[in-house]
Amino acid sequence: MKLLRYGAPGEEKPGLLDAEGRIRSLAGQVPDIDGATLAPAALAKLAALDPASLPLVEGSPRLGPCVGQVGKLVCVGLNYSDHAAETGAEIPAEPILFMKATSAICGPNDDVEIPRGSTKTDWEVELGIVIGSPAKYVSEAEALDHVAGYCVVNDVSEREFQIERLGQWTKGKSCDTFGPMGPWMVTKDEIADPQKLGMWLEVNGRKMQNGSTATMIFGAAYLVSYISQFMSLQPGDVISTGTPPGVGLGMKPPSYLKAGDVVSLGIEGLGEQRQRFVQG
Amino acid sequence: MKLLRYGAPGEEKPGLLDAEGRIRSLAGQVPDIDGATLAPAALAKLAALDPASLPLVEGSPRLGPCVGQVGKLVCVGLNYSDHAAETGAEIPAEPILFMKATSAICGPNDDVEIPRGSTKTDWEVELGIVIGSPAKYVSEAEALDHVAGYCVVNDVSEREFQIERLGQWTKGKSCDTFGPMGPWMVTKDEIADPQKLGMWLEVNGRKMQNGSTATMIFGAAYLVSYISQFMSLQPGDVISTGTPPGVGLGMKPPSYLKAGDVVSLGIEGLGEQRQRFVQG
Repeated sequence: MKLLRYGAPGEEKPGLLDAEGRIRSLAGQVPDIDGATLAPAALAKLAALDPASLPLVEGSPRLGPCVGQVGKLVCVGLNYSDHAAETGAEIPAEPILFMKATSAICGPNDDVEIPRGSTKTDWEVELGIVIGSPAKYVSEAEALDHVAGYCVVNDVSEREFQIERLGQWTKGKSCDTFGPMGPWMVTKDEIADPQKLGMWLEVNGRKMQNGSTATMIFGAAYLVSYISQFMSLQPGDVISTGTPPGVGLGMKPPSYLKAGDVVSLGIEGLGEQRQRFVQG
Repeated sequence: MKLLRYGAPGEEKPGLLDAEGRIRSLAGQVPDIDGATLAPAALAKLAALDPASLPLVEGSPRLGPCVGQVGKLVCVGLNYSDHAAETGAEIPAEPILFMKATSAICGPNDDVEIPRGSTKTDWEVELGIVIGSPAKYVSEAEALDHVAGYCVVNDVSEREFQIERLGQWTKGKSCDTFGPMGPWMVTKDEIADPQKLGMWLEVNGRKMQNGSTATMIFGAAYLVSYISQFMSLQPGDVISTGTPPGVGLGMKPPSYLKAGDVVSLGIEGLGEQRQRFVQG
């Protein structure tokens, strides 16, 4: 299934994408696409529905973030060997974790605000893992049992805030609209292997990132297991798993986004996003 | 007002502490002590109630975290000059921010789990600032207008996870039960000056921290303004503002918590917490 949320910001309704690419309403079935709906039993109920029996949503409504009420957004840094190299960092011996504020999450095609004072707003296409059942001290072998599905995340980053404004990265990762998520969450049964997904990102039509989850240093199952040793993962939590080479910080000279730029990105099987960057 | 939440974990009901120190139920008034209830207009409605008219809660129920559905828990590092000195760090030129997972939040007197593999679980008494209205790009002068009140936070920290396990601090700050919060949130009208509050922490009855918010490097108003330049603060968000000297990491030699230890802590006017540490 491809689960999504549509409607005005803060008033999104749950829906799914049918085989013809049309939105069907799930408003009569579940209150939201959130932690409760992502539990294995709840997902199984939705999977048993005939999409043709669900109300067709007319027009082209705005898409919201594909998961609502995200409890936490855990991000992994420098998780592609080539990306680590382009930023001048060493290959990490174990995953680098940081947190992005959930208030940064927005719809996949919403305008992204360049924060006031920013000169180094950058892009990062990433595979998002959506948690479906609580995970605490889980092994790598059982980790994917706790995953509901996957989605595209643009881990928008302000490099001066992140690196030059003292200490922890969260400062450059948490600005409002720095977390476009979607267009939909694809349940894991539709993704044969999360480590074989092509991914790309364009700025104003120019290809900047062109990679594959195959080159992740730490894969999805390892990450779920690893993170669960430090904190419990809860249904509706999202892990953003790092980005392949091709970010603005890694260019020579570095190149960053300005108001009016358009960023498009996508991951094989998970859909595409498109954001216009505006001055915040 | 002293607002609190009482009852079993995940099923807490809203309440307030009356002048005699008894719990009165607010279950008939508001669904929870959360962002919606902390808005200025909603707080004013509660303040207009006569506590004696509210149902008395019998017995001594468990207290939950004093704020429910916290959207994000933003923490400030090394924000007391003496604490920076004891950890060997320089006085930061601007606030160091990190994020603690909201899944770490627990009641003020709940058992705290020492995570598996931990050898360096430490304590930190901190002043928590509870946000009451959205704050984005706010000035220091108007910052406290966006604050609903204050509470005690124990920013429990695993120093090996935080410092020796690569990169960002969040790994040692986000373990389940690492965020006792409460006993109650005291509305700001009862706190004449948040920069003049004595604070203390004891381990097994021995005084370890004995400080005052007067020695904070960056005060409450500055922090709210500063953080709002990087991310919007929303009602129900909490800022934990750093700890004074006396943590285990700063002792010579360092000393950490073990199963069976009891930590008590408090801040002037904001109440006290008491946690038993157990093996997770």
